Formats: sequence, C-alpha cells, structure tokens
Amino acid sequence: MIDSYPTKVSDDQARRAVRFAEIRNHSVEICEPLEIEDYVVQPIVDVSPPKWHLGHTTWFFETFILVPSDPNYEVFDAHYNFVFNSYYETAGARVIRTDRGNLSRPSVSDIYKYRKYVDEKMQDFLQGDLMDESIGSLLELGLNHEQQHQELLLADIKYILGHNPLFPVYKKEISEQIEIEIGTGMIGFSAGIYEIGFAGEGFCFDNELGRHKAYLNDFEISNRLVANGEYLEFMAAKGYSDFRHWHAEGWDWVRQNKAKSPLYWHFVDGKWMQYTLNGLQEINPDEPLCHINFFEASAYASWKGKRLPTEAEWEVASGHFDWGRRWEWTNSAYLPYPGFKKEAGAVGEYNGKFMVNQTVLRGASVATPKGHSRNTYRNFFPTDLKWQFTGIRLAK
Amino acid sequence: MIDSYPTKVSDDQARRAVRFAEIRNHSVEICEPLEIEDYVVQPIVDVSPPKWHLGHTTWFFETFILVPSDPNYEVFDAHYNFVFNSYYETAGARVIRTDRGNLSRPSVSDIYKYRKYVDEKMQDFLQGDLMDESIGSLLELGLNHEQQHQELLLADIKYILGHNPLFPVYKKEISEQIEIEIGTGMIGFSAGIYEIGFAGEGFCFDNELGRHKAYLNDFEISNRLVANGEYLEFMAAKGYSDFRHWHAEGWDWVRQNKAKSPLYWHFVDGKWMQYTLNGLQEINPDEPLCHINFFEASAYASWKGKRLPTEAEWEVASGHFDWGRRWEWTNSAYLPYPGFKKEAGAVGEYNGKFMVNQTVLRGASVATPKGHSRNTYRNFFPTDLKWQFTGIRLAK
Amino acid sequence: MIDSYPTKVSDDQARRAVRFAEIRNHSVEICEPLEIEDYVVQPIVDVSPPKWHLGHTTWFFETFILVPSDPNYEVFDAHYNFVFNSYYETAGARVIRTDRGNLSRPSVSDIYKYRKYVDEKMQDFLQGDLMDESIGSLLELGLNHEQQHQELLLADIKYILGHNPLFPVYKKEISEQIEIEIGTGMIGFSAGIYEIGFAGEGFCFDNELGRHKAYLNDFEISNRLVANGEYLEFMAAKGYSDFRHWHAEGWDWVRQNKAKSPLYWHFVDGKWMQYTLNGLQEINPDEPLCHINFFEASAYASWKGKRLPTEAEWEVASGHFDWGRRWEWTNSAYLPYPGFKKEAGAVGEYNGKFMVNQTVLRGASVATPKGHSRNTYRNFFPTDLKWQFTGIRLAK
Amino acid sequence: MIDSYPTKVSDDQARRAVRFAEIRNHSVEICEPLEIEDYVVQPIVDVSPPKWHLGHTTWFFETFILVPSDPNYEVFDAHYNFVFNSYYETAGARVIRTDRGNLSRPSVSDIYKYRKYVDEKMQDFLQGDLMDESIGSLLELGLNHEQQHQELLLADIKYILGHNPLFPVYKKEISEQIEIEIGTGMIGFSAGIYEIGFAGEGFCFDNELGRHKAYLNDFEISNRLVANGEYLEFMAAKGYSDFRHWHAEGWDWVRQNKAKSPLYWHFVDGKWMQYTLNGLQEINPDEPLCHINFFEASAYASWKGKRLPTEAEWEVASGHFDWGRRWEWTNSAYLPYPGFKKEAGAVGEYNGKFMVNQTVLRGASVATPKGHSRNTYRNFFPTDLKWQFTGIRLAK
Repeated sequence: MIDSYPTKVSDDQARRAVRFAEIRNHSVEICEPLEIEDYVVQPIVDVSPPKWHLGHTTWFFETFILVPSDPNYEVFDAHYNFVFNSYYETAGARVIRTDRGNLSRPSVSDIYKYRKYVDEKMQDFLQGDLMDESIGSLLELGLNHEQQHQELLLADIKYILGHNPLFPVYKKEISEQIEIEIGTGMIGFSAGIYEIGFAGEGFCFDNELGRHKAYLNDFEISNRLVANGEYLEFMAAKGYSDFRHWHAEGWDWVRQNKAKSPLYWHFVDGKWMQYTLNGLQEINPDEPLCHINFFEASAYASWKGKRLPTEAEWEVASGHFDWGRRWEWTNSAYLPYPGFKKEAGAVGEYNGKFMVNQTVLRGASVATPKGHSRNTYRNFFPTDLKWQFTGIRLAK
Repeated sequence: MIDSYPTKVSDDQARRAVRFAEIRNHSVEICEPLEIEDYVVQPIVDVSPPKWHLGHTTWFFETFILVPSDPNYEVFDAHYNFVFNSYYETAGARVIRTDRGNLSRPSVSDIYKYRKYVDEKMQDFLQGDLMDESIGSLLELGLNHEQQHQELLLADIKYILGHNPLFPVYKKEISEQIEIEIGTGMIGFSAGIYEIGFAGEGFCFDNELGRHKAYLNDFEISNRLVANGEYLEFMAAKGYSDFRHWHAEGWDWVRQNKAKSPLYWHFVDGKWMQYTLNGLQEINPDEPLCHINFFEASAYASWKGKRLPTEAEWEVASGHFDWGRRWEWTNSAYLPYPGFKKEAGAVGEYNGKFMVNQTVLRGASVATPKGHSRNTYRNFFPTDLKWQFTGIRLAK
Repeated sequence: MIDSYPTKVSDDQARRAVRFAEIRNHSVEICEPLEIEDYVVQPIVDVSPPKWHLGHTTWFFETFILVPSDPNYEVFDAHYNFVFNSYYETAGARVIRTDRGNLSRPSVSDIYKYRKYVDEKMQDFLQGDLMDESIGSLLELGLNHEQQHQELLLADIKYILGHNPLFPVYKKEISEQIEIEIGTGMIGFSAGIYEIGFAGEGFCFDNELGRHKAYLNDFEISNRLVANGEYLEFMAAKGYSDFRHWHAEGWDWVRQNKAKSPLYWHFVDGKWMQYTLNGLQEINPDEPLCHINFFEASAYASWKGKRLPTEAEWEVASGHFDWGRRWEWTNSAYLPYPGFKKEAGAVGEYNGKFMVNQTVLRGASVATPKGHSRNTYRNFFPTDLKWQFTGIRLAK
Repeated sequence: MIDSYPTKVSDDQARRAVRFAEIRNHSVEICEPLEIEDYVVQPIVDVSPPKWHLGHTTWFFETFILVPSDPNYEVFDAHYNFVFNSYYETAGARVIRTDRGNLSRPSVSDIYKYRKYVDEKMQDFLQGDLMDESIGSLLELGLNHEQQHQELLLADIKYILGHNPLFPVYKKEISEQIEIEIGTGMIGFSAGIYEIGFAGEGFCFDNELGRHKAYLNDFEISNRLVANGEYLEFMAAKGYSDFRHWHAEGWDWVRQNKAKSPLYWHFVDGKWMQYTLNGLQEINPDEPLCHINFFEASAYASWKGKRLPTEAEWEVASGHFDWGRRWEWTNSAYLPYPGFKKEAGAVGEYNGKFMVNQTVLRGASVATPKGHSRNTYRNFFPTDLKWQFTGIRLAK
C-alpha cells in the first residue's frame, strides 16, 4: 500500500499523485482476502493468476513510463519483463499465456516489493521535473489499464475459488446482486441519424474516439436486465436442447460443453444454487442474470422473440435506463469506428489489434472500479466466454 | 445430364424446367474432367469431396421439394439422408463433417443414378399439377444453393488437385486470371445517407433483404483489385514478419502456420509459381491476387496505409468499378440487416445461424456461375480460410 | 495380373518367377471386388487406402531391388518414391501417414500400370543374369512384405466398408468364421528349459532369429479360442464397467471411447450383429471372438480368473492345439531376442525399430495368406488397436 | 513435524511408532526450503504440486488404515477424499489429474494441519489395542508409499524450480552428483539358470514377489554409469539427428519435441550448463548422466554398439557394481512375474494395473530415501519421460 501521500508540489501534481496512489492501492485491496495459494493458479487459459495481474500492471508503469522517461531509473529485476509482459510484441519476448499458472516465482511477497519499488519511483517521478504533459496521457492509460485489471482480478478470483471443490468464500461483505423490477418496459426510439462515440473531456480509450453519425432504424430497448427467474423459464422450456434458437457455432458449443446453465450454477438437492463471491447461495429469481456468453444471450433473446441491441442502439438509449450491474452483450462485432487509427508503438497495440472475431459488450458491472465507466465504453470478448459479469438486455 | 427437355407445358413451366436442367447439368459439367478418385477425398475439413456436393445438392430437392410436396414420391435410398445432409438440424442426423472423406460409398456411379432419378422426378413435378407458386421460391433457393455448390466444387477441386504432389491439371481451357491495369485509381464518395440491401425483383437470399438506410462518412475506394506484383512487394518488405500490420489473431495464425505467401504459391528454383486449375504456372505480376485470407488482406491494407472497405461502402461504390473476378474481403462482420427474420423450418437455417464470427466478402469470382452474382450478395467465411477465390480492394 | 509365366530358364529361376507372380497376383485378387472409390479412403490413421498398399508393395521391389541392382532400370515415376514410402527413413522423404487418404492421384489405373511395369521388369530381372543369391533374401523379404500387406489389405478393406453407413458386402464367398467346440480344455506343461525362436530352413523375419533357451514355470494353456458366446457373458456381467479387470491405461481407453463391445458389433433391434466381409450378420455364439484389443483380451482373462499366455508359452505349446484363425494376444511385450542385431540399411528398419510399446500376437488369422504363417512368427501391435483379426486364448 | 515420540508401549509398538514418525517427518523436511507458492503449481501433467503429495500420502493412512480400522476415527474433512485420491478407483471419485495444479485450496497450512491431525491419530492407533499384525503390512505399504512420494517430491520440485525463468536454488547443501571413474569395465556372466525376485524378509512390493528361475544367455554389463562427457560425445556426433539409433517412436519424439539434450541442460554462452537443485551449474563431464528418457538411453547404447541390460541381467549382476545414484533404464517391459496375483481391494491397484506400456528401471537414485532401495526393486515409467533421476548402464 502507498501510504506516503505527496507534499509540497503543485495542485496538479498532487491530484495526480493521489489519484495514482488510490488506484494502485485498490488492486492491493482486492487481493487482501486471498490466501497466498490463491495468487498462483490459472485454472483455464483465460484466467490469469492474481499475482500476475499485480506484477503486470506494475510492469506497465515501469516499462512505458519509468524506463523511457527517467534516465536514472534502475529496473527492479531484468527477468520481470519476460514474466509480466502480456501481449505487447513491441516490448519483447514473453511467457506464453498457458504458462502463467506454472510459475511459482516471483513469489507474492517479491511482487509486492516490486509494486512498492515502482510506486515509490513513480511518486517521485510524478512529483518531479521529468513529468510533463506528454506523459500525462500515458499515465492515464496506465491507470485505466490497472482498473481494467481490477475487474479481471475479481472475475479471475471468482473463477479460481468457484472452481475449487471446497467453494471458499472470497469476502462476506461483497455483493454481486441487486433486485430488479420485472415489467414489460420497452423504450421506443425513432429512426434517424444519431451520433455515437466519445466526445467529452477526460480519458477515453482510442476505440471510443471519432464521434460519428450513424443511421438507426426504429427500435425498442428494454429498461431493465433479464432476471434469473426469466432465464430459468428458458431452461425449463428446454432452451439448451432446441437448436433453432442458437447460432450454428453456439449449438456446437452447447454440445461440446454439454452446456445447460449459466456459469457457477449448480443443481443441488433439487434446487439451483450459484457460487458468488460470498459463497454458494440459492438463486434469487429477481436478481439480474449473470455469467452467460454471447451464444446464450442470443439464444435467450431468440426464444423470447426478441434480439440483442446493437452497440449504437445501446449507446443512444443509455440515458433512459439504469446500467452498470452487468456487462451487456450486444449484437455488434468489435470493429473500428470510422477514421480509427492505431497509435505508433506498444500503446497502439492496446485495442486495434483485437478488432476481429470479438463481440462488443456495453455498460459496466458490479466488478468495474468506480470512475471507470462511460456510456461510450466498448468492452469486447469472444462469444464463448462467460466468466465476466455479463448479462442480457433485450431489444426489438 | 438431363437431356429430355420439356414439351407441352405452359411457358412458365417450360422456362422453369429449362432453367432447372441447365443449372443441374452445369454441376455435372464441372466434374467431367475428374478421375473417379478425385470425387472421393477430403484433404481438410472445409473441403468436401466432389461426390458429396453432387449428392447433397440432389438431396436438397428430394428433401425439401419432392418428399413434402409429392405424395407419390419414393425416396431413392433412405440412407442417403444420413449421408448427404450438410447442416440442417431440422432434417435429422448427419454424417459429421470430417467423415465425408471417409465414405467410399455411395459410389460416384450411384450418385449419378441418384441425380438422374431425382432430376426426372423433379422435371415431372415441375411440369405437373402439384407445382404451384408457393413452391417456386423453394425451387429458386434450391437452384441458387446448387450454384453456390458449383463455386465450392471448383474451389474444392482446386484444393484436392493443388495439394497432390503430382499437381494434376484440371482443365487446360479454364482461366482464373485476367490482367489488370495498375494505377492510383481511388474513387471518392461524400458522407451522407445511402441505401443498401436488395430491392429488385427476382431471387435474393434472405440475408440481403431489408433494404435500409446507412450513414457513411466520406470514403475513397480503389477502382481495381490488388495485383500479384503488389503483394510480392509486401512479401519482399517482410510483411509476414512484422506483427504491427496484423490482428493479434492473425499474427497467431501466421506463426502457427508459418504462413509466408498466398495459398498455392510455391517458390521453385528461385521463382514464385502458383498452382492454378491449368496446372503449375509462373506468377504474373499484373494479374489480380488470389487465395489470401482476411488476416492477410488486412495486413496488406495496413502495410499500404489503407484499409479494407466496409460492405456498405463496397455496395454503394460498386457501380463505379468492375467486379466479379475475386471475392473481395470487407472489414464488415457478417451480421443481420435491420429487421432480419429467420424463416421457419429448415430453410430458415440457410443463413441466419451463421451470423457470428464470420466476415463478409462482396462481389463474385471467376468460379461463380453465370447469373449468380449481384452487388447486394453477401458471401461470408471465417477469417483464416483462403481456399476460395478471394482478393483485395483497398479503401481509405 | 502377371500372365506371362517364365520359359527357358533354370528350375530355380522358374520356381522363383512363378512364386513372384503368384504372390503379386494375390494382392490384385484381393482388390477385385472393390469399387474404385474403395481404393482411396483412409478413415483412420492406422488404415491405409488399398491403392496405397498396391503402390507401396510395388515401390518396395522397385526401390530395394531394381534401382540398386539393375543399372538399366528406369524409374516408373520419380514422384512415386515420395508417395509410396511408408516408414523407411533411409529411403527419403515420405507422405505423412495421415495424408495418404487425401491423395486422389496417382489413380488406381495408374497404380495398376505401375504394378505391371515393375512386375515385368522384375520377371526379366529374376530370369536374367543380374539376379544372384545375394538378392534372393531381399526378394524373399519383399514377397513376405507383400504378404503382410495382403493381410493388412483385408483388415483395411473391412474397416473401410464396415464403417460405411451402407454396410456394403465385400465378397459373398469369403468366410471369417469357423465354429469351435467349447470345453474346459486346458493343456498342462511342466517347468523347465525350452527353446524358442526360428531354427528351420526357409524364410523368417529377423525378429524370430536367435533360437534360444527360456526357462518356463509350470503353465496351462487352452486348446481353443474364446468364443463369441463367452465374451457376451463378460459383456452381460458388465465387464466393460468394472475397472478391476482393466489395466489403468485400458480403463482410460474404455472411458474415452465409451467402449462396450468388440469392433464391428452393433446392437440392432435387441440383437447383437456383426459386420463381416459378407455383410452384417447375427453373432454366432460358437464362433471364435474377433476384433478385440489387448486391453479387452486382458480384461476378459482377468474376469475369467485366468491370464493371457506369454509368447514363449504359446510357441512351446503351439504343437498341441489348432491355431491360425485369429491373431492371439499374448502378455509379452515386443522386445529383441537375445543377440538380436539390426541389419544395416533400410532393411534393418523392418522390425527392430518397433521394439518398444508394442505387444506380441502369435499365430495367424483367416486373413493371413497361405504359406505366410509359422509358429515362431512374431506379429505386434499397440495395445489399443482392434481392427486386425485378433482373438483370445487363455492360460494360467 | 511429529515431535511427541512414543512412551510406555511395547518394543515393537515403539519401533513402529518411531519409524512412522521418522518417515512422515522426512516428507516435511523435503518441503522446508519451499516458498508457499512452490507447493501449488503443476507445470506438466506428470508433475504434482508438492502440497498434493503431502495431502495424498496423509490421505492414504486416513483412508486405508484409520477409517476402516478405528471405529472412533472422525475424518478430518470429507472433501479431502475427492481432492487427494490419486488413482484408486476403489476409493471413489477423484480430481482429474490435470486439475491438481488448479486448486489453491486446501491451503498449505490446512494440509499441514491435516498431516498433524492424522499423524496424532495414527500414533494413538499404532500404540493402542486396535493395531494388530494384519494391519502391519498395510502400514508398511503406507510408509513405502510415502517414501516413493518423497522421491517424486524431489523430482517434481526440481521440475517446478528448474522450469522457472528465475532458476531458483532449492537448497545449497544438496548434491545430485558424484564423480565416476571412466574405464572399460565390462563384467561377464555365463549362460545358465538364475533366480530373480524378492525372497528375503521385510517389506517388498507385490511386483517383486515370486522369486523364480530365468534362463540368461552369456552377457556382459558395465561396472559404472555413463558419464556426462560420454553423452556429450554422442551429442557432438549428431546422435539426435541420426534416425538409425532410435526406435521409430523415439524418433517421432525427437522431432516433435526438437529434443537435443538431457532435461535441464542449457547451452549458455558457448557452454553446456545444467539446472540442479543447487541452481544452474556447469556440466562436469565426469559425473553420471542424469534425466534422459528410455528413447535417449537406447539411442546412446545403439550408437556405442551396445545395448541396455534386461532387468534380470541387472539383478543378477547387481552385486558386482555400485548402484543407487541413478535409476537405470533396462530394456525390459514392466510385466508380471510368473504367478503374480493382484490383491483384492484398493491395495491391489498399487502395481498390477500399470503392467502395460511401461519400462522397468532398476537401482535407485540420489533422490531415493534411505532404506527404500533393494536390488529386486522394480521401478517403471513410460518411455518418453525424463524428469526422474535416470541414467544409463550399458550391456552387451
């Protein structure tokens, strides 16, 4: 934890340093309830060990700010670049992804030392003369990157504990849930030209940029998320056995995985239970559904005679409903906005190179850190993954 | 071959019967240069044995027209449904796709008997009283389906012969090539609302329907395809070794497959050669590039500082350039048009269920049968496949 | 077919030429009932296309006799070495095994031309001056090699036809079966030193050589094969669900393959049927069991409170019972006899390099060509394969 | 650690209790140098996480002694049977092997509590009235089982640390090495009947039982292990590129794995280094070779014009040379001795069910616990594994 807050610097510098400390500390807070062993494992390739997240986010500041901008900076450990690079080809060889869970070292305690070392150097740097505006946007990217990993941390911790036969509790006081009011609740919009994309001040990712016009046809969108109870009706109606509601690729996924419920659902003694970060609990039919993939979201919508919204529809309508509990699957492929340009260098690898065969999710979730959501935010995942806090909003 | 042309029927019936005979015969013509052995093999999962195409297109008419509409029709062989169903879940169990190349029976000669039997029954049916307008659209679908398989037949035959160490010639008189004039040739379009989608008379697939407005930004599009010589420059500039031009998934594909050229290209004695349906030939730098996948098309465009067009841009601009030699990769995901609805039954499985994780190709190719191309036609394939006659048109 | 039998040569030469022609012709006879399409497919990696067998056995004589020993010999087609080499590293690059079924060319008719060409050259060679004694053993190896492929041909043809949903008949007049008399029938042998291995005149493989002493303990061995009816009892007693009778690796095999019967057995309308070369037939409980792998043979023996014999026990006892209908699984690993030496060159690759992780089968089967069985013959296969004509003889 | 040694019991009971405590404590001692993180990971399927070994060996005593024999025993945690069963089908469902490294819980600290709990109950049991002779052999099996896992622990720890890019030291004071004197040193034996198998008093595994006669031919066996320097000559002579010395399956292994040295060897700055439990060190040419698999051992022997001994030869000769530094690959498949019988129940699963497709190693290694080696001991592993402390002794 960073406990030496800044003194004797400009207001801007002070604000920046406080913000840096707060965001960095939050990652550590997320990991506080863990046993050392929980930091290490990688049960599936998409889940990273928590200690890797802690190292990788630190490596980002070291590699992209301290090393290039602070001539006196000494790298903490030269091997760490190899261990903590995720997918930045620009930044050199990296441990192949399936190997992350095979590395017992660096130890958790060494990684916390690494964080402390880099945090202190960063605080010095942020309050020193080398910091200038050109670095400001890179800093913001680093902090937003850390916030993205905070959300991944929670999803990955849930996967690690939720796939352990002992079903350990992560934290008693955390809540993934909120009850929603079931109603018909479709909101209508008329055909016409709308504008989408980021146009405000402050930070956004490059994939949101280029606010632009889009022509939308008449559409309606629900004012609420689909609830567990509604999805239970789909399951009871044999939705997982009726190919007509599924994409061909989704139907293959159902059969290969013998899919029959959302992730973390277990049928125990005649009742559907779900593993949550508070442990195993009975399903509440009034809470918003969570942990379904795009195939399931589409199949459910088809079964209801509806469809998923496009990301443009979602963004246009987003002022008219509450959002932020579940990442909401859209029926939009993740593609560049008109005029999108990759930046040069490693930072340019952040978003653009993933713009193929991924689907856009909009909104935010209970796992999203405060201050890290916007209605122009474009999250994206492959269509078969369900370990994020994902839900469904219907359209027609 | 169907050689008994219709007599003594209405003009409409006659026209229909002739059209049926012509299209059905064309499939047989495509296979005429083959040895029996060439009909049987399936070197990769995406390629089907020619005899399977011949059987499957026949099965379509038997299953979707004769069986439901002709009460006196007797199925040719009850086992054939199992063998020749492709992906119609509605129509029962099917041979899994990888098994097609393991089936030596039914023999080629039995399949030709099957075609003859079904063709005769169809001719009787088309000229009889049971034929009515409601079946007309199903017939058209069946004929367009057959034409799609004619294009696949040529692509699959090329794959089968082109992956044989003896490089056999398919047919001396066929040409895949045409020279193109290299120039700058970008055509400009202004931002505004355009309409896309099918709105004419005659046949179209359900995925083209719903002509609708789309807002396009200013764009430019090339008046010609990328030529072999231009792609050779990309290769010479080490385009296959520079991750910056590739999607992350594309870069994985390059490394896993050690990709370094279009399909069918061989570096022999210091020269690039390509296998064509006429046999192995030296690359002509002025001919349009062929057999690259979406990853390669995108990487090439990025290297040129350009991009691929969207399918809307392509359709809007299509009146201003020649097209039809190569299927042109767009940067559009294959998704439903506004208001798209799947039809009920097996026919509804034709297009809608593939609308995920596929990319749109526009235009047509040298392998497309006559009368089977439209500027609203939406072809689609996964991003890693390159055995179709695919090419590149740049935009910016 | 070779129809020009030799004239005007020495008795030895004539005998050799006749023997050559007879054995070569037998391969062609085996293929006579096939459709062209049946020659081409390779449904699993262990099964080779019949046309490959015909080419490969021909290639053996071309490569190991004609090319090195006849200075005037012209290779039929230089590409064939690449296509028809099986596993002889000495003889250059080869088509990887899984690709054999992807090659439509050379056509069946070209391969028959290849056979005719090589057969004629061989007949000239065998009756000419270049033939001397040193080549005699290579010739014998080639003929025995051809006979081994004749047995593989039958097993592979059965697999190809038996895995086709139409269950085509290979030949009406062939019989895989013979009834056996069920009885207790154990034959006892006393402990002591016995001799095993080949010591006669005539041909044997190098792996049989080195007749040597072996000490055997008291043992008993059955005078007959296990019958279908007995194996049905094992199945009825849930033998496939009781891990106690299985090797750990066998039990994994059972579960991964959901094994529950011998190969080619189908439970149809309440009855067990088996596919044979005569087509689908009801199981005769008195016929010897066929098409089980080593795991199944061992599990059955364990369930009966018995065991499989070692190969030494089998050979010592072989004069006391009838054998030759089924290849009989032993509990002996395929290992070199004392003093075994690999010969130099490609011929040395024939047997020695397979002496690891394979299990010995003794005897012969209904598919073994006449004149190709000895009680010292050491056949060998991996423990999970069951497409050979394999059976069980118990010991204790 | 068990620190309350027994008092006031019979000599036999006391001896037993002391022996139990000593062996159980040794497992804990082996793990003392580890970080918590090192207990958790499973880099390949053959390596188990150290915490799993600690839990599994404890589970053995709980499941096979305390639960069936002590009516008052309360299971420590009912979920542990699911987590710590290795391959005993008799004892219920188990975590699939690839999952071991995905389980962060039970934590290391919980597993030490489990050990303490079971150790105390065992000590009470061993010194109480319920203990009788019939349980003695099961106890001995449990202790020998624990010793086998102690050796596995060291091999697995070496793998975990030796595959970490930081190459952490396990313990400075441990030695894997000893210098050997290079000489010709073949010892000759005459043909005749020899006896092999266990016949002494004290413990042995069931697979060693049934001392029996075997006829051996004249043979010679080396009086020493192959040294690193000798293996370097094989490497320098391109032994890894010459198929003639390899089994076909071994050659496939070489090519698929691009094998070119023993495990843990790294070519750094022009020198061959090896990772040892003391960290990365230069290769000493006079030390015995370690960490090669059966394929490599066989290829080396072939290159030297020699062979590997059979297990009978090894056992007969073992009084005439030093052994115990490396497990020595034999050319014997792991098969039952004459008269071998599996015991009933879970204990019967210990050895018999692995008697297929494994190869026998004889001797012992630097990692073998004291008191756990015999010249009749039959160790066994698949032919491709090299993470055990394996070496080569030549024969001819």
